[in-house]
Amino acid sequence: MSSELVCLSMEGGAAATTPAALPYYVAFSQLLGLTLVAMTGAWLGLYRGGIAWESDLQFNAHPLCMVIGLIFLQGNALLVYRVFRNEAKRTTKVLHGLLHIFALVIALVGLVAVFDYHRKKGYADLYSLHSWCGILVFVLYFVQWLVGFSFFLFPGASFSLRSRYRPQHIFFGATIFLLSVGTALLGLKEALLFNLGGKYSAFEPEGVLANVLGLLLACFGGAVLYILTRADWKRPSQAEEQALSMDFKTLTEGDSPGSQ
Amino acid sequence: MSSELVCLSMEGGAAATTPAALPYYVAFSQLLGLTLVAMTGAWLGLYRGGIAWESDLQFNAHPLCMVIGLIFLQGNALLVYRVFRNEAKRTTKVLHGLLHIFALVIALVGLVAVFDYHRKKGYADLYSLHSWCGILVFVLYFVQWLVGFSFFLFPGASFSLRSRYRPQHIFFGATIFLLSVGTALLGLKEALLFNLGGKYSAFEPEGVLANVLGLLLACFGGAVLYILTRADWKRPSQAEEQALSMDFKTLTEGDSPGSQ
Repeated sequence: MSSELVCLSMEGGAAATTPAALPYYVAFSQLLGLTLVAMTGAWLGLYRGGIAWESDLQFNAHPLCMVIGLIFLQGNALLVYRVFRNEAKRTTKVLHGLLHIFALVIALVGLVAVFDYHRKKGYADLYSLHSWCGILVFVLYFVQWLVGFSFFLFPGASFSLRSRYRPQHIFFGATIFLLSVGTALLGLKEALLFNLGGKYSAFEPEGVLANVLGLLLACFGGAVLYILTRADWKRPSQAEEQALSMDFKTLTEGDSPGSQ
Repeated sequence: MSSELVCLSMEGGAAATTPAALPYYVAFSQLLGLTLVAMTGAWLGLYRGGIAWESDLQFNAHPLCMVIGLIFLQGNALLVYRVFRNEAKRTTKVLHGLLHIFALVIALVGLVAVFDYHRKKGYADLYSLHSWCGILVFVLYFVQWLVGFSFFLFPGASFSLRSRYRPQHIFFGATIFLLSVGTALLGLKEALLFNLGGKYSAFEPEGVLANVLGLLLACFGGAVLYILTRADWKRPSQAEEQALSMDFKTLTEGDSPGSQ
């Protein structure tokens, strides 16, 4: 009920408001995300000997980097427009782009870790479904970033071009995030079956911990998706902001439209 | 451009129209879905000895039933309101419920197949991440069906209750479908690692076929999500239908609101 009232006041162009339940959902998503990162660290520390670059432990940098970059940071980059719904559009947009850059760089370190480890060990590359999905995610993520930057931050794209691209950008952003979650689940499963083998079915503590980690991954994906898709939590269109902020664009080309 | 025009004409309450691109996207999703089912059959037939209930081949009924029920039929049940956008709401609603029942029954056969196989072989149950996710999907799917039936088909829920539950029903429906796709990917990976072992990294034909199958699963999930979430493809609100059709409900309680 309260969120409906807030929605009405926003449509009327009233002062900045935040739907009553949104902060609780965001806090819950952050709790899930941080638990996820901590539990990945705990799994690698307790059962896989920890992390080091110049040894067999180099592999362990891969899951940790991927969970921090392509799950936690990517997820939070998607939530920026909901969390900072009353900040200037331009600030939010730059934060969105920056979080995605951090995610991309950390994921790149994770990729280098696994390819370098495979090379040193003489293992084959890119044969598994996890690796195929992973490469697909990485390429799509990079392309999405480049196209997003060209349309929304780099001066050049017209108002109408931005409006038409925006829904595609949002759909592909959410899809790439979900594919990242799926790829992480596949990687986790692979790591368990390679290392635990038959002991997995004996309910070994590592197996149970990793299963809980997998469920947490799925729950974090679900929580981000819920906050992102709830219609009355979308960033309100701020007409006055469109007139005032230029988002790096020239006056002649007009500015970016409405909410994202 | 054409879809925008269609959208405008719908808002103006004009005659039944279908967005120009929608049929092509639906056809593409069906092509993906049928290829998925055929390729699952081909994988089981070519590399796993086919399917039979009273033998070791009983296990193979599990992946086939799950792909037909919880992927292909569940995905298509979600698309019913887009594909039959100009049919009577009540007909579409019954079709949506029926497709979900078929999916549930086929998935149940698939569940019985794997538990029965495990029992005969003396294998442990419910230790893997795939099985945990699978049970979660099945329980959520059953609860979603029951709650959906009570709100939308069974007479009783008021107009305002239906309006408030509808967005939740849609979100959880899409989430359960995506979790089903993720669970299928985990199961496929499990089947590959259990059976292929070290040969997986030698690019065995079965491994490559199963990887392609995995990518197809992800693509089908993406295609269904795209058709479902595209704003201008949503079923138009039909005021006259609300007044005419009662959807099994009494006059005093009013009918279900707008589009789904």
